[in-house]
Amino acid sequence: MTTIPRKIRMGMVGGGPGSMIGPIHRAAANLDGQIELVCGVFSSKADISKAQGRELFLPDERCYASFEEMMQREAQLPKGERMDFVAVVTPNHLHFPVAKAALENGFHVLSDKPATLNLSEAEALAECVQKSSLLYGLTHTYAGYPMIKQARDMVREGRLGKVRKVLVEYPQGWLSQAGIEAGSKQAEWRLDPARSGASTCVGDIGSHAAHLSEYVIGSAITAICADLGSVVEGRQMDDDAAILLRFQNGARGVLIASQICAGEENNLKIRVYGEHGGLEWNHTDPNTLLLKPLDANPQVFRAGGPDMTPLAAANCRTPGGHPEGYLEAFANHYRNFAGQVRARIEGRAATDVELDVPGLSDALRGMRFIESAVAASASETKWFLLPELQLLQENTP
Amino acid sequence: MTTIPRKIRMGMVGGGPGSMIGPIHRAAANLDGQIELVCGVFSSKADISKAQGRELFLPDERCYASFEEMMQREAQLPKGERMDFVAVVTPNHLHFPVAKAALENGFHVLSDKPATLNLSEAEALAECVQKSSLLYGLTHTYAGYPMIKQARDMVREGRLGKVRKVLVEYPQGWLSQAGIEAGSKQAEWRLDPARSGASTCVGDIGSHAAHLSEYVIGSAITAICADLGSVVEGRQMDDDAAILLRFQNGARGVLIASQICAGEENNLKIRVYGEHGGLEWNHTDPNTLLLKPLDANPQVFRAGGPDMTPLAAANCRTPGGHPEGYLEAFANHYRNFAGQVRARIEGRAATDVELDVPGLSDALRGMRFIESAVAASASETKWFLLPELQLLQENTP
Amino acid sequence: MTTIPRKIRMGMVGGGPGSMIGPIHRAAANLDGQIELVCGVFSSKADISKAQGRELFLPDERCYASFEEMMQREAQLPKGERMDFVAVVTPNHLHFPVAKAALENGFHVLSDKPATLNLSEAEALAECVQKSSLLYGLTHTYAGYPMIKQARDMVREGRLGKVRKVLVEYPQGWLSQAGIEAGSKQAEWRLDPARSGASTCVGDIGSHAAHLSEYVIGSAITAICADLGSVVEGRQMDDDAAILLRFQNGARGVLIASQICAGEENNLKIRVYGEHGGLEWNHTDPNTLLLKPLDANPQVFRAGGPDMTPLAAANCRTPGGHPEGYLEAFANHYRNFAGQVRARIEGRAATDVELDVPGLSDALRGMRFIESAVAASASETKWFLLPELQLLQENTP
Amino acid sequence: MTTIPRKIRMGMVGGGPGSMIGPIHRAAANLDGQIELVCGVFSSKADISKAQGRELFLPDERCYASFEEMMQREAQLPKGERMDFVAVVTPNHLHFPVAKAALENGFHVLSDKPATLNLSEAEALAECVQKSSLLYGLTHTYAGYPMIKQARDMVREGRLGKVRKVLVEYPQGWLSQAGIEAGSKQAEWRLDPARSGASTCVGDIGSHAAHLSEYVIGSAITAICADLGSVVEGRQMDDDAAILLRFQNGARGVLIASQICAGEENNLKIRVYGEHGGLEWNHTDPNTLLLKPLDANPQVFRAGGPDMTPLAAANCRTPGGHPEGYLEAFANHYRNFAGQVRARIEGRAATDVELDVPGLSDALRGMRFIESAVAASASETKWFLLPELQLLQENTP
Repeated sequence: MTTIPRKIRMGMVGGGPGSMIGPIHRAAANLDGQIELVCGVFSSKADISKAQGRELFLPDERCYASFEEMMQREAQLPKGERMDFVAVVTPNHLHFPVAKAALENGFHVLSDKPATLNLSEAEALAECVQKSSLLYGLTHTYAGYPMIKQARDMVREGRLGKVRKVLVEYPQGWLSQAGIEAGSKQAEWRLDPARSGASTCVGDIGSHAAHLSEYVIGSAITAICADLGSVVEGRQMDDDAAILLRFQNGARGVLIASQICAGEENNLKIRVYGEHGGLEWNHTDPNTLLLKPLDANPQVFRAGGPDMTPLAAANCRTPGGHPEGYLEAFANHYRNFAGQVRARIEGRAATDVELDVPGLSDALRGMRFIESAVAASASETKWFLLPELQLLQENTP
Repeated sequence: MTTIPRKIRMGMVGGGPGSMIGPIHRAAANLDGQIELVCGVFSSKADISKAQGRELFLPDERCYASFEEMMQREAQLPKGERMDFVAVVTPNHLHFPVAKAALENGFHVLSDKPATLNLSEAEALAECVQKSSLLYGLTHTYAGYPMIKQARDMVREGRLGKVRKVLVEYPQGWLSQAGIEAGSKQAEWRLDPARSGASTCVGDIGSHAAHLSEYVIGSAITAICADLGSVVEGRQMDDDAAILLRFQNGARGVLIASQICAGEENNLKIRVYGEHGGLEWNHTDPNTLLLKPLDANPQVFRAGGPDMTPLAAANCRTPGGHPEGYLEAFANHYRNFAGQVRARIEGRAATDVELDVPGLSDALRGMRFIESAVAASASETKWFLLPELQLLQENTP
Repeated sequence: MTTIPRKIRMGMVGGGPGSMIGPIHRAAANLDGQIELVCGVFSSKADISKAQGRELFLPDERCYASFEEMMQREAQLPKGERMDFVAVVTPNHLHFPVAKAALENGFHVLSDKPATLNLSEAEALAECVQKSSLLYGLTHTYAGYPMIKQARDMVREGRLGKVRKVLVEYPQGWLSQAGIEAGSKQAEWRLDPARSGASTCVGDIGSHAAHLSEYVIGSAITAICADLGSVVEGRQMDDDAAILLRFQNGARGVLIASQICAGEENNLKIRVYGEHGGLEWNHTDPNTLLLKPLDANPQVFRAGGPDMTPLAAANCRTPGGHPEGYLEAFANHYRNFAGQVRARIEGRAATDVELDVPGLSDALRGMRFIESAVAASASETKWFLLPELQLLQENTP
Repeated sequence: MTTIPRKIRMGMVGGGPGSMIGPIHRAAANLDGQIELVCGVFSSKADISKAQGRELFLPDERCYASFEEMMQREAQLPKGERMDFVAVVTPNHLHFPVAKAALENGFHVLSDKPATLNLSEAEALAECVQKSSLLYGLTHTYAGYPMIKQARDMVREGRLGKVRKVLVEYPQGWLSQAGIEAGSKQAEWRLDPARSGASTCVGDIGSHAAHLSEYVIGSAITAICADLGSVVEGRQMDDDAAILLRFQNGARGVLIASQICAGEENNLKIRVYGEHGGLEWNHTDPNTLLLKPLDANPQVFRAGGPDMTPLAAANCRTPGGHPEGYLEAFANHYRNFAGQVRARIEGRAATDVELDVPGLSDALRGMRFIESAVAASASETKWFLLPELQLLQENTP
């Protein structure tokens, strides 16, 4: 008897009216036709949750008013109906409770970042995941871009020789104005430590930049010198960060993250230099990766073009010159994570492409980075050594 | 009693194994979660069609082996089950027969371009559509980009004054090699006049460039001087075109389309100049529109940024700096067309955003352009006047 | 006895108050310290000419009020004092009379383009030059850029295989406004056929684009289809041109030149495609040449970078990343032409680098192109064959 | 009696065979025809100095073998013959001795940077200059670009509001290879502390970046946190630097300078963010300045384009779209400094444009920055306060 193939079933917590990232997650889940949204908690008010669900063509009975309710009710549904995994797209303070409840009720978790509100929650999360033997994924979106995967592979292949220097930056301008939290739901919770965590800027975007640097060079950040600032008047939380880096493999780095670079959109950029050349990737032109050899002409690697590595090629959908973007990068994580879920269903090992989704190790390192940045910034000593992570199973990203 | 909202149901003809454009159409249909693929003809061989359907999570009984069969069987299904519209993603020679059958069986049609194999088929198509009172859309993808809609709106608003000059180009390199049709399914049918029509290059990409120019400036091409060439040895069909243009509003233009520009990907570009300034858009950076005023600094309009027109904003999904691409442009046509279908279901008038999908008038003008380009190129006289279109209801695009 | 080295002595005709191009020529002549301005006619009014000369540190007695006077007086000076060559930087109608007078009085000529007012003058010029055995150079500036020389060499080396297609464009916007000639000295004479010649747009910038295409691919334009327009109301002379091209080597091309592309600066661009790949150069980033191979990643050639050809390297002054520009390109022609003059003085053969200055053959082909473009545009027949040039010694550029 | 205008006379120390920067200085001095090279010390070997001089058309008797000889002999020449100023283009260790000798003999000084070998020499230099009442200029080249002046003016005009953040970077790759000093004269002396000073990377390029940031925002660096590294094996001197900045006006900054960013040319870049928007300038496209307002579309300011400030416009030579580059930026300093000299000769006050040349205050701040960076990098404390400069006359740049 053959297994009848079916879509992977997703429940969502968060993503109600006014959410920015909820619709992004849903589009990412939709794109490849592998995933079906079957239920959700879109608001703690039942009628709002149901109204949002109706817009998503969900029946009222699968639109819940609390994640606890969702977990219990879905767990009671027949195996052929209930959700396979939970997408967590709430503000940060709910990431851990929702993930924990999902794992404890037998559901895989794909969570927005940062993984939790703080490092100790992340350690508790790691215990939950390890105890549950379920899948955990973390949507560090930018690692989903094919040309980032190309960069990672080229570094691994030794195209640059030993990596010496990493420059990663993520300037934004959207928090430049004093009092913006009054008018923007997005700003409001991100500037509230109870919902955002110890840091606004490092938590929101610095953690993306840190993850990207570790992912591309395949080595973990081990020491930092941090300068966080609350630049805009009247603000308690940081909105600007400059962090000097040391990686486990000896590379040096600079990480710039700021939300007061007025006029900037989301100009994430990473440059990696080794003995034999450098790589450069810009979010403004994400389908291009520039290789600058030490003593030869720069080469332009293009998504959909020649000379892609298998991993990069597997994360492209269009021929060269038909640009893919942010939603496709996001969708790569969803599709690859759904592949892991499907592998479980089919009783097979997940493929390398399916496994290439940020996970628990990234969650732990990410929360360590955020907390360390805050501590390091407060210190008068230049260098701050990142604490060892007991629960981290992998040494390197 | 309230209407229970549901997804719009799509059947697809084409898009089987080896298809390039089929998966693109499906991703575009998936992205916004408004459309559900319910049936298809993915091959004229029943087992292949079913196998492809299974990968798309379709039941065998909705995977047909001929479009005639699909139309008849779907028409017999209960109203609450049968498809709402047919997506036509076959080679060109089947566009008309499939569309005709769909329309005659009561299904709306969203077709890949060019609309038909030749102008007389397009005129027959127009009759079918007008007789049926059903909806017809044509996926001229590039008109789906938000910054193209921004350009169109800015021209309409008079930001450039009277339009004087249009430069549009679409250089590709993928047909540069002699004999490529032996190894590429895509090349093979495009270089076969029986399946492609009178022109390879103008049909495949020149028609996109022509449509884009008409869409942006809001005026139809009325006369041309064409220079088509079969550059690669041993080739009967054209693979290169340069066409001088005159528009109804008096503007002059140049259209360059070529598939032998070795090394080029899909570098569509349009520039429009009026009395007061110019606009520039490049497919390599589709989220940017450059406004170059006559005597002031250039301004950079960005998708998701400030100062977008309502139509452009309605076709964006992400905040500025999170690039959207080709699939999103494609998805805009699908989502907007699905909105037209939904408006019919709901018995309301379609909105301006929903109506902004290329349609019958574009189909007629497109086929006229292709045929005229071939005729004009064969003529020793410089200028060739495009024939009037009897069935064209609108005067301008 | 050794020759005591000295600077090459230049006289200038034109470049008085209000001149745009005069100061450009002088800066170009100054840059490399090889050339000394010793005399000039900066105005037909003696006092204005002298006043301008004083600003250039010239003694009054070397500032003349007519070119005839300059030629005679300079010819009478001792050999060790008199000018070596004349730089002609007047409006077009004086190019030929000044050059003729210079040649007849024993002075080499380096002239601004176009060479003359019309083709018959160019043929008379060719006779003068050939009779005189003196040197003649023509400042088609853009051919002075090192990356253009790199492109030329790469085409010659066969890096692209057989050249199939050339796209060259020169959009400007500065003549967009009706009546601009009332306020701009530059516009005024260029729109006056008596001083400008048969064409404004083709004469002023189309001729640059044509020259560049011939220089880069090493083949002459042999047939054209031209569409010239007087776009701005009330204008007799053309301000816009689109020209389809055929080259002697079989390549096809499109040349776009326009002075009504509102908002454009001087965006000259050339792309050349052969069997194996393409080359792209933009005036906005003149130190970069992009090589796009058919089936490999694009490569970025950089002025001052690795893999430059000897000719390109000889025309660079700075290490990679220290941009050179328009004045340096112009200065390359001056320095190389001065090298030709010095070779005559030293009784040696000029080097390949010194000889790489546009000359008489370019002058003849340039004037033929301008006149043919006007004639072709007036014709109702599509293709216009360029007349043979009797006096042209070289067949190809 | 009117003053007969004449060129300003320059003597040069340095710039002999193998020099990179000497020919650059000479071209910069030549470009505008305001300066005449009249003498030089091109080598400590008399015959080599004279041979080099002959190539520059100098008589043997003005080509000296030591700077002491040059100062004495030139001082004895008649006022109408002797040099006006000395251009110092030697390795760093000679900057101060040559400048001192020039000043003591009555000659103005225009020196390459950094001003001296260390801060105490810079203080001694300040005393010499102040005692002599002569002119002192320092060729921080990048401040010569018109669009940098535009940025400075726009910050001054308050276009950004209060400046909050400065990002300046100067990645190079040319010292990436171990042992390069064996084959490169440029690398050899820069990696030798006796000739280069305390720092290679900060001295050579970090000082440019620091100067540029101070120049653009009009405020001095007051505290730093520095991370200098000797990345390439076997190297004693630093080749890489990352420095966090605080400015007197409260702005925060990050300065990245590195000579081991393999594959980079000279990619200097500066971004400045204030309350109302940001400015961005890249050396790869130096004629463009991007203004990114907080809530409006980015605007592109172009050299030679509309809306230039008077200072920026005064430092442009070509119409928009005719790119100027590094030599023109350099030439601006030469021309403006020559203007200061000419003002002295003419007994008039120098204009604002003439005065806009980096000078003594920049020299002192520059040397303070280099020494402080080395000290700060050696410290385990995070922040290092820059020492007060007693002799600094101006508070702000």
